[in-house]
Amino acid sequence: MNEKNLQNVEAITDMEQDFAQWYTDVVKKAELAEYSETGGCIIFRPNGYAIWELLQSELDKRFKQTGHENVYMPLLIPENLLQKEKDHIEGFAPEVAWVTHGGSEKLAERFCIRPTSETLFCSHYANIIQSWRDLPKLYNQWCSVLRWEKTTRPFLRTREFLWQEGHTAHATAEEALEETLRMLDVYTDVIENVLAMPVIKGKKTDREKFAGAVATYACECLMHDGKALQAGTSHYFGDRFAQVFSIQYTDRDNKLRHVHQTSWGVTTRLIGGLIMTHGDNNGLVLPPNAAPVQTVVIPVAQHKTGVTDAALGLYDRLKIKFRCKTDMTDKSAGWKFSENEMKGVPVRIEIGPKDIEKGRVIMARRDSGEKKEIPLEGAENALTDLLNNMQKQMFDKALQKQNERTSSAKTLGELNESLDSKLGFVYASWCGSEACEEEVKEKASATSRCIPFDSEPNGDCFCCGKKANHMVVWGRAY
Amino acid sequence: MNEKNLQNVEAITDMEQDFAQWYTDVVKKAELAEYSETGGCIIFRPNGYAIWELLQSELDKRFKQTGHENVYMPLLIPENLLQKEKDHIEGFAPEVAWVTHGGSEKLAERFCIRPTSETLFCSHYANIIQSWRDLPKLYNQWCSVLRWEKTTRPFLRTREFLWQEGHTAHATAEEALEETLRMLDVYTDVIENVLAMPVIKGKKTDREKFAGAVATYACECLMHDGKALQAGTSHYFGDRFAQVFSIQYTDRDNKLRHVHQTSWGVTTRLIGGLIMTHGDNNGLVLPPNAAPVQTVVIPVAQHKTGVTDAALGLYDRLKIKFRCKTDMTDKSAGWKFSENEMKGVPVRIEIGPKDIEKGRVIMARRDSGEKKEIPLEGAENALTDLLNNMQKQMFDKALQKQNERTSSAKTLGELNESLDSKLGFVYASWCGSEACEEEVKEKASATSRCIPFDSEPNGDCFCCGKKANHMVVWGRAY
Repeated sequence: MNEKNLQNVEAITDMEQDFAQWYTDVVKKAELAEYSETGGCIIFRPNGYAIWELLQSELDKRFKQTGHENVYMPLLIPENLLQKEKDHIEGFAPEVAWVTHGGSEKLAERFCIRPTSETLFCSHYANIIQSWRDLPKLYNQWCSVLRWEKTTRPFLRTREFLWQEGHTAHATAEEALEETLRMLDVYTDVIENVLAMPVIKGKKTDREKFAGAVATYACECLMHDGKALQAGTSHYFGDRFAQVFSIQYTDRDNKLRHVHQTSWGVTTRLIGGLIMTHGDNNGLVLPPNAAPVQTVVIPVAQHKTGVTDAALGLYDRLKIKFRCKTDMTDKSAGWKFSENEMKGVPVRIEIGPKDIEKGRVIMARRDSGEKKEIPLEGAENALTDLLNNMQKQMFDKALQKQNERTSSAKTLGELNESLDSKLGFVYASWCGSEACEEEVKEKASATSRCIPFDSEPNGDCFCCGKKANHMVVWGRAY
Repeated sequence: MNEKNLQNVEAITDMEQDFAQWYTDVVKKAELAEYSETGGCIIFRPNGYAIWELLQSELDKRFKQTGHENVYMPLLIPENLLQKEKDHIEGFAPEVAWVTHGGSEKLAERFCIRPTSETLFCSHYANIIQSWRDLPKLYNQWCSVLRWEKTTRPFLRTREFLWQEGHTAHATAEEALEETLRMLDVYTDVIENVLAMPVIKGKKTDREKFAGAVATYACECLMHDGKALQAGTSHYFGDRFAQVFSIQYTDRDNKLRHVHQTSWGVTTRLIGGLIMTHGDNNGLVLPPNAAPVQTVVIPVAQHKTGVTDAALGLYDRLKIKFRCKTDMTDKSAGWKFSENEMKGVPVRIEIGPKDIEKGRVIMARRDSGEKKEIPLEGAENALTDLLNNMQKQMFDKALQKQNERTSSAKTLGELNESLDSKLGFVYASWCGSEACEEEVKEKASATSRCIPFDSEPNGDCFCCGKKANHMVVWGRAY
């Protein structure tokens, strides 16, 4: 198969032509995921799962640095346990899957597959927390959860998805709130500095908060197509769950008090965000910090004397310091170029007879396509610089795009117009009533994304004209 | 609470008195696991989950070194997919949990929660394998699986457990068989060199092999109480699943051929094995390579000038090279000693005013109780040596115990007598008939553990007296 054919085979739809099809093409052709025989669930293929593993290690490191411990709770929740907290069950009951039979027997009580594990953690905390000495409890769990969604899209919304869920219990409301915000900052750090996705941080309105939470905080990102993506959430529960589950501790003064709790999570939907923030019409583009393979060494005219040895020699040097691959198969160099381009490998290194003669290699950046000749002996340092620059520039470019697509509105008409013309984030002052949110939803198909930190309302509510109490970022969201 | 009280509170049953109760006590008091409200499922607490994380990293490193990639398949399997391979469904149908409702709707087709994922991998392989260039496919998955067991015990047998399942597809039978044995060796390496548990490797008899496999190979270990534990299995499928699922590839000669497959797995039951191989009447004993915390620095007479600083200083030095903790809470030193003893931390380091004065520390081994004075400036090297010795000696001690409990039998009576008196492994030659295995099961409550590699039958079948074809290791197993 020649390179012309390869391009035909691997061609992906232009994003300007059909963004949704472009997304699906990238997911499939970069071999990130595949549809499965289990409706609404995907198979995470090696390239997709490797991104998740990398994200896990970046997050887990930070969770441990901030004092958290990992645990694992059961997959199944007894129906009576799920039903303990009223708002929580109302939020989740419509979308859980029910196990009714074990082997050939009908069960006396149904179990649901966890859609989230607040109830299990609370029940455990009620057992293991007795004294102020037992606090705080800073637990996290890596697992999959299941929500019976009607419409699904790979990574963005699937019935089963992978995630982590942090669940913590504290002596005071202040400590719990501090934890809620600390974890939001951890998410921001990873999303901005690993995934190179700029976020707007803020508080969710009551309409958009988590079922059972007192307050939800979120990181909101903007995708290529101007739609918003909720990338991570951190919830403050106060003592609501503690009251229902009787999670109490004896304080220093010998009084019995309820704990204050948080939960927080990010999911494999971040992989979808990564695709839609950086991808282009040639496929996936990975920022170096989020790339399972940061560089690939490709021999050019591999059959010529010395090429294979030189490529392997360079690979052996680079793999000490970088996540590095090489490809010595008999596929053509051009085929290998395209394949790695599709898969979003940040830097391709070419080495052929002419390069060997001149003591150099060619380094090609995936994001800009820029090619540079680099002296062979200084390859490590040059690559470090290149990857660092690329990471920074990918973030800057994404931030610039976000800024270009951010506007403000004084009326619902302005908001609607702005969203219709270029989507993006729209800042508009809001009175605080759910009725206005409903109207915005209905008339502009938009939702409040968050009330950004340190923002102030400016004038009256853009929807009802009454006194505004909050500045809100609005958008059409995934 | 004084130390006397601590010992009362934390006291565990002697293993000589009641081994099963001893086991449960260690699981609970070392805070490895807790029963959950989901019947038959446990909560993996931080101390237990940390052992699993360490095991995961040791295994995963070796899987990647041998060319494997991680993927993730759906949790749910459609009923028709599970039923494709006859032996496989017969083996698993009696013990799967069925999802019949999604949200409030009854599903048109039931899904089972995966008891293992052969069928999902096969269906995926049929889609992605076309040419000899696509082979081998070396995939692994980290996940939880569920089997609706009637009787459960923490780690050893629970409805849900954590594991990894490798699933590979190869061009030839030879390559697949080679892979099956390679992974058995990887398991042996980790079980012997990380967990310090000596194994007997061999082939399972047909009665004991995996549902759907052509052959199953296993690592068998012996516990403190003389019962056997199957610690890891590796299955060779030939092209049985490939025939059923039509997994075919075009070979170099342009002919269509079926792939040959393997699967292999180890589970969190290894944690149970670890407890029952090394634990003692004071609690858990962890070999250094399997210990999430290898050493704990405990200040003695912490209120005295300089003690806290000296302990923290030492901790800061040691944590660079070792998995190290310290404990600066206001609990007494004696309390901290007992707590870390219970949790199996390999080496306790004591540092108090007298030690500081003499420029030394005390290092106490968890396995032998041996205490040594070590010059403070050489603590790192001394600790390295101590941990290495301990790892080796714990393995040697376990091997010695296994040898002491290994015997041979010429008749069923001898086997029964040997098992009744001291349990353990019994070598006995066997004809190869399932009828004899059934008789052994019925009359001696024993099963064939494996046909050890490089073993030869010796004389006639110990059960029926006919010509023996295999040497088999028998035992009573978990």
